[in-house]
Amino acid sequence: VHVADRLVEAVRAAGSVACVGLDPRPGLVPPVLRDEALAVYGDTAVGVAAAFVRYNAGIIDAVAGRCACVKLQSACYEAYGAAGWQAMEDTVAIARDAEVVVIVDAKRGDMGASTTHYRQAFFGGAPGLRETTPVMPGAGADWLTASPYQGSDTILELLGEPGDHGVFVLASTSNPSSDEVQGAVLDRVATLVERWGRDRLGGAGFSDVGAVVGANRAEDARRLRQAMPTTFFLVPGYGTQGADPLDALAGARPDGSGVVVNNSRQLLGAWQAGDPAQWQAAVADALTAMNEALPVA
Amino acid sequence: VHVADRLVEAVRAAGSVACVGLDPRPGLVPPVLRDEALAVYGDTAVGVAAAFVRYNAGIIDAVAGRCACVKLQSACYEAYGAAGWQAMEDTVAIARDAEVVVIVDAKRGDMGASTTHYRQAFFGGAPGLRETTPVMPGAGADWLTASPYQGSDTILELLGEPGDHGVFVLASTSNPSSDEVQGAVLDRVATLVERWGRDRLGGAGFSDVGAVVGANRAEDARRLRQAMPTTFFLVPGYGTQGADPLDALAGARPDGSGVVVNNSRQLLGAWQAGDPAQWQAAVADALTAMNEALPVA
Repeated sequence: VHVADRLVEAVRAAGSVACVGLDPRPGLVPPVLRDEALAVYGDTAVGVAAAFVRYNAGIIDAVAGRCACVKLQSACYEAYGAAGWQAMEDTVAIARDAEVVVIVDAKRGDMGASTTHYRQAFFGGAPGLRETTPVMPGAGADWLTASPYQGSDTILELLGEPGDHGVFVLASTSNPSSDEVQGAVLDRVATLVERWGRDRLGGAGFSDVGAVVGANRAEDARRLRQAMPTTFFLVPGYGTQGADPLDALAGARPDGSGVVVNNSRQLLGAWQAGDPAQWQAAVADALTAMNEALPVA
Repeated sequence: VHVADRLVEAVRAAGSVACVGLDPRPGLVPPVLRDEALAVYGDTAVGVAAAFVRYNAGIIDAVAGRCACVKLQSACYEAYGAAGWQAMEDTVAIARDAEVVVIVDAKRGDMGASTTHYRQAFFGGAPGLRETTPVMPGAGADWLTASPYQGSDTILELLGEPGDHGVFVLASTSNPSSDEVQGAVLDRVATLVERWGRDRLGGAGFSDVGAVVGANRAEDARRLRQAMPTTFFLVPGYGTQGADPLDALAGARPDGSGVVVNNSRQLLGAWQAGDPAQWQAAVADALTAMNEALPVA
């Protein structure tokens, strides 16, 4: 099944546009999981990684079937080196077992052979020492975020067969300084994204080349939707980053499709306002509130 | 010592502007090391990682003191997951023990807390589960490559105290499609890079905010040098990517300083033209030839 069709179907089946941001930090891990990991591993990178996987597993259990997808911020894992990377891969595997669509938000961008290696890292296929078999599995992501800064070389090489996996290209990000460079090239990037995805459409009319458009960039989102009618939008910056629900959906098609909205802190940190022992219920309730605020058309 | 001063001193002491690209792939590993790793680990990611570390250690041994620095292409390691990441960290540690300046070419770019996590991943300082101690060491890089696409948020947060470590910002990359997006923002990026580094100069007159300028972009390099007089240039695309030695040095200051030139394939693959058992000597000879082609002024 085309990767964009799977995302469209996940939104429909869950009745949710929510993308659950699995961006763990030690301060967000509930005390019970933190103490378990400390007891077994001490205060080490392996201990942090173990706590992250346990926390993510509980979150995935609480949200599977009620969200569109999950998104792992790669930086949170890389901060803990090899152990952190393993925690990222383990989390992806848990999500896939739960049949949840997985985005890895690693914002990669490079050229030539390096891009091939990034494709292998996140989608699999790196050669072994014999260069034939075995082929390494990679992190197992469905979608990867990527930077368009180095142009077509980067994006086309990340893509495999149409629909096998997808790339969300940074278009208009939600951070305060995003306009400094992106502002001058937004139309150019939109043209490129549309061109890259043109012959790669799934049955629902979306390609495997998506775009990242911040929830606080509603004006850009409406303009980009005109320029990129077949592009799925990944919308960060909702929740604690403060965007309005209507703004978060500004890039949707007239029928409401084509958008998933990421929320990390508001979901992962929800337990901090109540009983820490009930952290899974807190995540589930926060997702329910988000789904009510952002109804699927 | 300011990170830019250490790089200037490394160029002077070695009499070399060469940046040795540690970009291993299974096909570049000499047969003796490949067979050793296969015997111990089989054809697994751990085996590939072990072979990469052995190969890198031999290369570092052959080039230490005769090159300006080494550069690890992060993608080559990430393709092998957690084992690959560990190989990257182990390689950085070996280079540091040999007192070689280390650039990690990971082209990271993100915003806010995510950028903090990337800083921690490559320069250290991630918190443990107790959020106070211990602090994680990170990969131990001296310099990291980064994308300016999300603007000041990204770069300023990657930097710590002036001179502790440095960032090479992608300005004009060497790939065929680099002009598609970068072409429209090159002057803007140059202005930003100069501004970011302005108050962060070392004693030799270079800041800890460098720029990546492809060897095949000599015209850009000359223009950027005017706009960025205190910026160190990292120059990829020399060697098998086909740039002329004079072009590779086009961004140097009038006194010849301010540039390191990366070469990976021509050095790492040098053994393939001769006796594979003499692979270390082949790397050393290829570096000698590069140093002769690119004399330090």
